Amino acid sequence: MAHEGPDPRFGRVAILGVGFMGGSLARALRALPAPPDVVGWSIDPEEVEAGLAAGALTGAATDATDAARGADLVVLATPLAAACDLVEVLADVLGRDTLLTDVASLKGPVREAVRRAGRGLRWVGSHPMCGGERSGFAASRAELYRGARIWLVVDDSAPADGIRLEAFWTELGGRPARITSGEHDARMALASHLPQLTSTTLARLLAAEGLSREELGPGGLDMTRLAGSSPLLWRDLLAHAPPTLPEALRRLAVEVGSMAELLEVGDLDEVEAWMAATRRWKERS
Amino acid sequence: MAHEGPDPRFGRVAILGVGFMGGSLARALRALPAPPDVVGWSIDPEEVEAGLAAGALTGAATDATDAARGADLVVLATPLAAACDLVEVLADVLGRDTLLTDVASLKGPVREAVRRAGRGLRWVGSHPMCGGERSGFAASRAELYRGARIWLVVDDSAPADGIRLEAFWTELGGRPARITSGEHDARMALASHLPQLTSTTLARLLAAEGLSREELGPGGLDMTRLAGSSPLLWRDLLAHAPPTLPEALRRLAVEVGSMAELLEVGDLDEVEAWMAATRRWKERS
Repeated sequence: MAHEGPDPRFGRVAILGVGFMGGSLARALRALPAPPDVVGWSIDPEEVEAGLAAGALTGAATDATDAARGADLVVLATPLAAACDLVEVLADVLGRDTLLTDVASLKGPVREAVRRAGRGLRWVGSHPMCGGERSGFAASRAELYRGARIWLVVDDSAPADGIRLEAFWTELGGRPARITSGEHDARMALASHLPQLTSTTLARLLAAEGLSREELGPGGLDMTRLAGSSPLLWRDLLAHAPPTLPEALRRLAVEVGSMAELLEVGDLDEVEAWMAATRRWKERS
Repeated sequence: MAHEGPDPRFGRVAILGVGFMGGSLARALRALPAPPDVVGWSIDPEEVEAGLAAGALTGAATDATDAARGADLVVLATPLAAACDLVEVLADVLGRDTLLTDVASLKGPVREAVRRAGRGLRWVGSHPMCGGERSGFAASRAELYRGARIWLVVDDSAPADGIRLEAFWTELGGRPARITSGEHDARMALASHLPQLTSTTLARLLAAEGLSREELGPGGLDMTRLAGSSPLLWRDLLAHAPPTLPEALRRLAVEVGSMAELLEVGDLDEVEAWMAATRRWKERS
């Protein structure tokens, strides 16, 4: 099967946004046995300087369109709203063979931006399920994507483009899997947004009661860690959140009320059953 | 001030329950420059054997009353319901000078058991704010109490007894502070029970939606870690939980509903304000 078609690997990759996610991707690419050229752009020139100094970037651009011009693959690694804006900015610059992807944690808004831009953009959405509380190039590391689930949204793309991006992430150690943008975003609302807002709401209540985090045990600390997340980053994500998010919050509110009622009527059998079921769920994974 | 009264330290300590908490206490006591005798009892004889083998116990008893007889300090380090039962069992055995304490995470039920037992028991309640998911003597460690807040309930005890137990925990590296049993249990409902039940309820919803923990990011994993807690241990605690717990759950349900509404009406300013406030709260501590 070898050498049957053109080399599926990308010779020149442009990374727009070289913070934690983009910087880690640049490092991972340059650590490959046959590394591509990696051109970086960032709204913060110091991040690009750091990327060049670390050898994670082989080239730099002062303009996003300059970085993208001539690239075989363009990766949008900025916050979500900036990624959507960049789609529009880049639409006239990308070559016919250039593949476009992004690493945003919601795929619907990026897909919508691609549709609005039109002009035959070849987009495959990527969402690597890795990250953490840290941000910026200084926190980036070549191993970030190793072992991570990479959701791939191929809703509108040519089969060959999906296969090529699958190979791209696999070579970096990721575990790509396909999903539609709608299903992806509904799952993210549950897996990421709902826990975030639950932590925020719980922390708000504890703060209103005059408790500090010092008074919490290890479990309470776990449950309020997300309360320290960036409000601006989340505002951006929540602005594009699917309607399944408020629906899930409504369901959670009902269930929390049910738990209160179980305690009020003293139905500890049922409380124990809830806890036994969630314990089994936790142990399964 | 030295040598003005009798040595405030205890020459012989009985620990009933030598699992994670009791075992760690035994280890910490035996690591002191002038360690007391430490006699252990457990419903599980293997835990006592392990304690003797590790040098954490200097003596063992096959019966709780035998362990307590002749002790200067008796520490109840069993689950809450067992601790309350032991108070009644021990009431006739404890000497007039023997001090009784416990490490249960609710103080009201123990205090009530002491009152019911009568017979002039000298009880000071202790609640060390440390622990974790692990249990059993095998997980115990001498440093567990170092730096930990130790809540002391001296509601019904003689001033000298409170001072003596304060010195006891301080020598082990703990940070004792006094609180009434009512205030303590209300704070625990918020600091410990509410986060636990929030995690259980969130995990129940995610499980019902078909998500596994593998699909969660670091934040979602934090928020569902407590879903693996022991249902039996928590049933015991919840059976004695103060009425402030269901009240707090009701308030949380209302707040989660408010968050849903903010998203529905698109009031992202207010969502951002909630997140900014909880972030400041988290950073303060």
